[in-house]
Amino acid sequence: MAVNLRAPARIEPVAGAEWAVGEAAIKKPGRNDIALLKLADDATVAGVFTRNAFAAAPVRLAQKNLAGGRIRALLVNSGNANAGTGRQGDADAQACCVSAAEALGISPEQVLPFSTGVIGQALPLDRMRHTIDTLGARLESDGWLDAARAIMTTDTVEKGASRAVDIGGGERIMLSGIAKGSGMIRPDMATMLSFIATDARIAADDLDVALREAMRGSFNAISVDGDTSTNDACVVCATGRSAKLTPESAAWPLFVTALTDLSRELAQAIVRDGEGATRFITLAVTGARDAAEAREVAFTVAHSPLVKTACFAGDPNWGRILAAVGRAPVAGFAIDRVAIALDDVAIVADGEPREDYAEADAAAVMAQSEYTIGIDLGRGEACSTVWTSDLSYEYVRINAEYRS
Amino acid sequence: MAVNLRAPARIEPVAGAEWAVGEAAIKKPGRNDIALLKLADDATVAGVFTRNAFAAAPVRLAQKNLAGGRIRALLVNSGNANAGTGRQGDADAQACCVSAAEALGISPEQVLPFSTGVIGQALPLDRMRHTIDTLGARLESDGWLDAARAIMTTDTVEKGASRAVDIGGGERIMLSGIAKGSGMIRPDMATMLSFIATDARIAADDLDVALREAMRGSFNAISVDGDTSTNDACVVCATGRSAKLTPESAAWPLFVTALTDLSRELAQAIVRDGEGATRFITLAVTGARDAAEAREVAFTVAHSPLVKTACFAGDPNWGRILAAVGRAPVAGFAIDRVAIALDDVAIVADGEPREDYAEADAAAVMAQSEYTIGIDLGRGEACSTVWTSDLSYEYVRINAEYRS
Repeated sequence: MAVNLRAPARIEPVAGAEWAVGEAAIKKPGRNDIALLKLADDATVAGVFTRNAFAAAPVRLAQKNLAGGRIRALLVNSGNANAGTGRQGDADAQACCVSAAEALGISPEQVLPFSTGVIGQALPLDRMRHTIDTLGARLESDGWLDAARAIMTTDTVEKGASRAVDIGGGERIMLSGIAKGSGMIRPDMATMLSFIATDARIAADDLDVALREAMRGSFNAISVDGDTSTNDACVVCATGRSAKLTPESAAWPLFVTALTDLSRELAQAIVRDGEGATRFITLAVTGARDAAEAREVAFTVAHSPLVKTACFAGDPNWGRILAAVGRAPVAGFAIDRVAIALDDVAIVADGEPREDYAEADAAAVMAQSEYTIGIDLGRGEACSTVWTSDLSYEYVRINAEYRS
Repeated sequence: MAVNLRAPARIEPVAGAEWAVGEAAIKKPGRNDIALLKLADDATVAGVFTRNAFAAAPVRLAQKNLAGGRIRALLVNSGNANAGTGRQGDADAQACCVSAAEALGISPEQVLPFSTGVIGQALPLDRMRHTIDTLGARLESDGWLDAARAIMTTDTVEKGASRAVDIGGGERIMLSGIAKGSGMIRPDMATMLSFIATDARIAADDLDVALREAMRGSFNAISVDGDTSTNDACVVCATGRSAKLTPESAAWPLFVTALTDLSRELAQAIVRDGEGATRFITLAVTGARDAAEAREVAFTVAHSPLVKTACFAGDPNWGRILAAVGRAPVAGFAIDRVAIALDDVAIVADGEPREDYAEADAAAVMAQSEYTIGIDLGRGEACSTVWTSDLSYEYVRINAEYRS
């Protein structure tokens, strides 16, 4: 069902970053469900994590280890989120880090653990340890696509991309990244799982600044169902094998732009593969007093089940859009300044249907697999863009049958 | 599909309140779509209305007329919400009031107009006026059930109820009410449409206090899809044909209790008839620091598409409940104090699955047509209860096909 999304033909290797994958029978048999990323000795790492108050055990341990020191590896399992698992979950996440550390000859504090899948069940620790033990011998720099597949849960398409950036002086830096996510998607300063590496040499603090900048227009601007996961995380690693970059470098904006662009492609891939998605919808809110207000309106419309089912039906029932804008938590709206358009078909102006509006024109826009809902609030200069999917029978089927 | 909801066999007449209904072909042919309630000369009226910033034209006019003076009639049409209709909508709402006033020999300012249905289309004013003209001759005190039917849109069952209250001294007061609503249901200090009358004599200000009290545990505690309508309104009328009541009366608590109880039955009927509903779910949040916090948690869980689809499937995937609680907009949660239960089956204690928890027990609860999801936050004494429905294929079908 994914909307205009194909698996990447190739994800470019990044010097100083190697993946190994294995099968621990956490997911259905025959699918890899563990991925290990080994980083160069002097790599730097930055990460953003879910704001769900009930962050999973691996999220809390990853935050602790990231704050503590030099990260040398990322360990990811799919099929089980190790969330809502109490003290046992904490012990299991730590045990996974110990196994990975032994496999790589590093210390457990140098490993960031990640889990994604069903909430509230204990990890199958014995099987996982057995698999992790074998991964040290199977690392390969060209393992990105295998890793993208191993971290999938309800995803139907692997998500990954690369960017090569010429930074002048004959130098080139590489960025590659993978992501997973399809449901429980409304990242809050983080995403589902995404792992990005670059071969540039960047101080950890600077990398963190670049990551947060990139998040704003990518993972933090998508929603499938408004449900923020307990396990969201996005991590970027800089292996230091190519050019050194600082915020003062002439090439710094090129790097941040490439990181943002790569992140946006991965984030949009999550929406395109949103559970049951048949449409990829861009919500472009303009004319707001500030960006926060524009974002509130965009997400309120993006989360409206009535707007999402109208998109599924291809029905230009724009009153549902207007009603959703009107219930957004923003004070002092004036309906008589609001304009609504579907792509270039202007529907509402000054809060009323335009005289020249013909419903057939809007229906033609909504028959496409992707289009933009434009909402102008007519009260300022700020704007915000959010990407979302529609609400289909298939969304209900997937989530009613997820565990069965 | 309505969950354990049958049309009322009878709704008791209230002295001083008469209904007339008619057909103006706003809805599909053969269904009444206009209802007029005539009130006794000295009736008092109180109302609460949607907080959607883009309140419909009739809502704004009703608020103005209610503030201005003595209300003698309520005019309701279904099939068209007269929302998002700009200046034309304002003029049309006023024209409807003029017609109703002429039919009853009162002034237009004494009429409260209400509309419900599709947003963004002009009212068929000529047909409506023609129908309204005939209503004055067709008023009857026993017309409540006909009115309940005339105000329906996607409702599948008429919603109405009565309460007779013995207030001592051989005196009895009567309350009857009707409601409509099935989708775009997340009332915000108001509801879809509900009209209640009592024959007691109550000053308008006192009636307003009683109504707001009754709303808290009824219409303001339900949600079907989280979408607050542009047209929500709940109005209570006191015709003054039986006992006089004031907040100082010994019987005042009996009246408020009966009003709350009647409102709750009508509000729950809206959820039971929620679009595509197959389950009626009570969310009981306890152990909160204050009622507002408990309410935020209850509504966050009630709006989670993942929780709602799990309810549809009868799947005790409690991790989705935990994740929804964790993303509620409440600061400083401690997961290790949270408890979750389905009816009397305790699942989570201190943030972890209980050792004695057997999934089959929870599945048995969820196989029922109604049950309670209990969530204890373990950080205070406050609580809140919210009623909601599940998210089924049928919800998607109804809203994808609403206009087609």
